[in-house]
Amino acid sequence: MPYVNIRVTREGVTAEQKQQLIAGVTELLARVLNKKPATTFVVIDEVDTDNWGAGGESVTVIRKREAAAG
Amino acid sequence: MPYVNIRVTREGVTAEQKQQLIAGVTELLARVLNKKPATTFVVIDEVDTDNWGAGGESVTVIRKREAAAG
Amino acid sequence: MPYVNIRVTREGVTAEQKQQLIAGVTELLARVLNKKPATTFVVIDEVDTDNWGAGGESVTVIRKREAAAG
Amino acid sequence: MPYVNIRVTREGVTAEQKQQLIAGVTELLARVLNKKPATTFVVIDEVDTDNWGAGGESVTVIRKREAAAG
Amino acid sequence: MPYVNIRVTREGVTAEQKQQLIAGVTELLARVLNKKPATTFVVIDEVDTDNWGAGGESVTVIRKREAAAG
Amino acid sequence: MPYVNIRVTREGVTAEQKQQLIAGVTELLARVLNKKPATTFVVIDEVDTDNWGAGGESVTVIRKREAAAG
Repeated sequence: MPYVNIRVTREGVTAEQKQQLIAGVTELLARVLNKKPATTFVVIDEVDTDNWGAGGESVTVIRKREAAAG
Repeated sequence: MPYVNIRVTREGVTAEQKQQLIAGVTELLARVLNKKPATTFVVIDEVDTDNWGAGGESVTVIRKREAAAG
Repeated sequence: MPYVNIRVTREGVTAEQKQQLIAGVTELLARVLNKKPATTFVVIDEVDTDNWGAGGESVTVIRKREAAAG
Repeated sequence: MPYVNIRVTREGVTAEQKQQLIAGVTELLARVLNKKPATTFVVIDEVDTDNWGAGGESVTVIRKREAAAG
Repeated sequence: MPYVNIRVTREGVTAEQKQQLIAGVTELLARVLNKKPATTFVVIDEVDTDNWGAGGESVTVIRKREAAAG
Repeated sequence: MPYVNIRVTREGVTAEQKQQLIAGVTELLARVLNKKPATTFVVIDEVDTDNWGAGGESVTVIRKREAAAG
């Protein structure tokens, strides 16, 4: 009965992509650890880019610099 | 000083129900472990049904099938 | 299909007390939100007192002061 | 490669304050544990006051009482 | 820069299986969301069976009943 | 009443360093968001290097390669 929490930035993840993540993680846990899909929970958290930091900066700032650099 | 995180799907939980969850969990920790209510934190996360998976499917898909089955 | 994570300091919680927490939280979610017990997961994390801080101090330090104060 | 999750109530935290939290935590982990900023992730979760409980009450209720008390 | 937390019961997961989970999740996020493997973190938490509950019972109790049932 | 969870690999973090992290995070939240130290909780999780992955590999594997490279 695994619980998997996937946290990514909120940058346009579609319902179809979420479904692929849910199916993929569930299949992985069944294959590697023989966990039953029926009791495998997958929860996806989408986090605003202002609220996610890496390298001491928010992803909002990182994305702006990437865009400016073309 | 316990910290309790309750994660449920976002399907119309009311403020009154949230209050009941907060009060109930706090009372449970006081009764079972003698934890002080004043320093017991309860945080409720409501998760969109697209973002919660069980059995390899999103809850959105599961709810649609349940509704179709009547 | 709720997921509940209870985090407390590691200070001698017994298997019987853990069972009471699991049963109590599951019953609470069934009563307040009509959630099915079969798909309610409860995970208890016990955290070393060196690793839990409150008021800017570790619980190890807080417990020593409480003991000294008698 | 630390991962830090800061959870606070959603009460008007600005993008500038979020940036200060990200920079401050990243600097702290570099200074105390010699962790590389480039692979230090900081994720801030803002939680509605209805969804955060302390002392068996939601923060919404606590804030109303504080306001009434002037 | 995704962060993925996999929580399973502590029931003899090997280092090789952990490596397969880490590689599999990282590949999934690269394929579905085009996330860079270098900044994808995967953290596996193994939880004692006394500390994981489902259906209002600890996994320790569930496993004993399963063993008795043969 | 913030809750902060710091997750790092288990590689010899001392009680003194943990105390510095707890004090530093608590001070940061007081300074940036005016949060009361008394109700700021900081929880440090140390994760085995087999259980932490980055770039599709466990930190155990990464550390061995770093050591071999001198």
